[in-house]
Amino acid sequence: MTTVQVLLGDRSYPIRIRPNSLPDLGEAIAQELGATRAVVLTTPRVAAAHHKPVEHGLRAADVRTDRIQVPDGERAKTLRTASRVYDALLEFGADRQTVLVGLGGGALGDLAGFVASTYLRGVPLVQVPTTLLAQVDASVGGKTAVNHPRGKNLIGTFYQSRMVWIDPEVLKTLPPRDRRSGMAEIVKVAAIWDAEFFAWLEEQIEEVMRLEPDALTEAVARACSIKAEIVGLDEREAGLRALLNFGHTLGHAIENAASYRRYRHGEAVTMGMVFAARLSEKRGICPSGSAARLEGLLKRAGLPAQPPDWNQDRDAYLRAISVDKKMRAEKVGVVVLRDIGSAEVLQLTPEEILEGAP
Amino acid sequence: MTTVQVLLGDRSYPIRIRPNSLPDLGEAIAQELGATRAVVLTTPRVAAAHHKPVEHGLRAADVRTDRIQVPDGERAKTLRTASRVYDALLEFGADRQTVLVGLGGGALGDLAGFVASTYLRGVPLVQVPTTLLAQVDASVGGKTAVNHPRGKNLIGTFYQSRMVWIDPEVLKTLPPRDRRSGMAEIVKVAAIWDAEFFAWLEEQIEEVMRLEPDALTEAVARACSIKAEIVGLDEREAGLRALLNFGHTLGHAIENAASYRRYRHGEAVTMGMVFAARLSEKRGICPSGSAARLEGLLKRAGLPAQPPDWNQDRDAYLRAISVDKKMRAEKVGVVVLRDIGSAEVLQLTPEEILEGAP
Repeated sequence: MTTVQVLLGDRSYPIRIRPNSLPDLGEAIAQELGATRAVVLTTPRVAAAHHKPVEHGLRAADVRTDRIQVPDGERAKTLRTASRVYDALLEFGADRQTVLVGLGGGALGDLAGFVASTYLRGVPLVQVPTTLLAQVDASVGGKTAVNHPRGKNLIGTFYQSRMVWIDPEVLKTLPPRDRRSGMAEIVKVAAIWDAEFFAWLEEQIEEVMRLEPDALTEAVARACSIKAEIVGLDEREAGLRALLNFGHTLGHAIENAASYRRYRHGEAVTMGMVFAARLSEKRGICPSGSAARLEGLLKRAGLPAQPPDWNQDRDAYLRAISVDKKMRAEKVGVVVLRDIGSAEVLQLTPEEILEGAP
Repeated sequence: MTTVQVLLGDRSYPIRIRPNSLPDLGEAIAQELGATRAVVLTTPRVAAAHHKPVEHGLRAADVRTDRIQVPDGERAKTLRTASRVYDALLEFGADRQTVLVGLGGGALGDLAGFVASTYLRGVPLVQVPTTLLAQVDASVGGKTAVNHPRGKNLIGTFYQSRMVWIDPEVLKTLPPRDRRSGMAEIVKVAAIWDAEFFAWLEEQIEEVMRLEPDALTEAVARACSIKAEIVGLDEREAGLRALLNFGHTLGHAIENAASYRRYRHGEAVTMGMVFAARLSEKRGICPSGSAARLEGLLKRAGLPAQPPDWNQDRDAYLRAISVDKKMRAEKVGVVVLRDIGSAEVLQLTPEEILEGAP
């Protein structure tokens, strides 16, 4: 079992990673958390594929188990769904010692975290992410959220898991496009923080994409460990953690211009990263050739690296990049590369950002 | 200005106490928190009495101010109300730097804390408690909550204020019965933690009850400082903080048996405290005469110290005391006195507790 420790003082927790480890989760919950009760929060699709080994493992470890299902996907991540989960938890008589297990992708994990942080002022949370993006992204950082009609993730808390349990084998049931989207996140943390890991990815990307267990476990563990390091240095998003937004300024604008339909998040971030790397070169911050190296790796992961042509939609992009829609002259922070493995935040106006366009 | 520091590492904050200080709150928010925007969450009744000086003070300090009103009282403390407050905050364009000011009693403070902890994953919170109970109780400890149809305070978070601002003069607008109910809380913390403060109260209780500014400020400050000390030693209710439940085991049962209608919380806790003190004497834990001393002080504060006769309702009380309604033989923790100024938790069955009845 590979373990990455997230070090946050008395809120520290381990991320445990091993192929085919779902049946052993119950034992770990019983032993390490001393729990005798658990409620598994999941979705119909994930439950069909993965609930059985989790439930059997919990029962075998003498942990009383109940299950709550919410609809799949981002649209169910609302205060109303959270409220129904509270109802079900009360119905089951879940108390402050009952472990809430979030079994699912990123949206389910966000909801599980929100509920765990607010039910009875907080119950122990174990995240079992079942998408690559959730495994490397959502399992570290303690951000929980539900959506509001006015925007995504507007309601939420900071709340750390007690344990994160990653079985890379579950990714075999994912559509390839979702796997690729998760790879964008792995490449991102390598690009901003760890040149050596980036070079390792350049050697191993095909093995990782084929879900070869050793390579995949290594990639997920190293990505989690970088995220854990960054979050450990900056738990509440005061500064350093902003580097994790690499590719997001443009990525969000691209998603927005496409009404969040055409691209997966990871695809939009991919284009945003390549764009930001080119901008870094253009402004002389970063050695030339870095953007090409990043683009090359992302392409080998099957990701669309070429940003869309926004010349006909320039105004929509400027608006999307601006923080305050009425203050377009105001500078926004954009993450640029200093080199492969190193990044910084630059303050630029939306116009200055788009000038970096190829 | 009297200041009590609540020491919780990087979540430490000051409680500032001074008569007639509402107009100066804005300046403190601008100076100490560096804020340029605030939203005041309050209720119609409290707004009518106290919103004007707060608003003027904020404006005078160049802090942009909006106001959100929710209905008075415990019944409005729901997820649905919280949701309406989110809507209003988004409508005003409140961002992560916008200070949420909770101006009101205990229920309003619980709701304000819950919203502040969950809106955009947390915005700065300033509590301005306008009842005596909220001033000494809810302003320290970081407990936030909304109610659920199945019970009070079932949904909530732990979230610390950035500042608590107490103007004891606002208590003049309170009905006398609410003031007395708040005094029960002050006597409680003295009884479990500070014999010297208890003796001071025995000398000064009439001045405090007349709202004589110096005596009142001193009483509120010392009660807050005891609570701050206890919470500082045990932020997340692992142990010591349980002592603050002195009087609550029976108090809750009394409230419950009266369907939460007949008694104020402080009145029920008063009866619970006297009962627990008598139980302590009866079991030889506490010097005889302590219960009479406690009862004497509470009576001088105009509080009903004699617990109701539950012999005809014995079963209802036993049920209310039990943690798990199906496991009445199970022991529950009850706070008993070792002496005036010192307390401990004893594990007793509900039957053993009721045997302490006079």
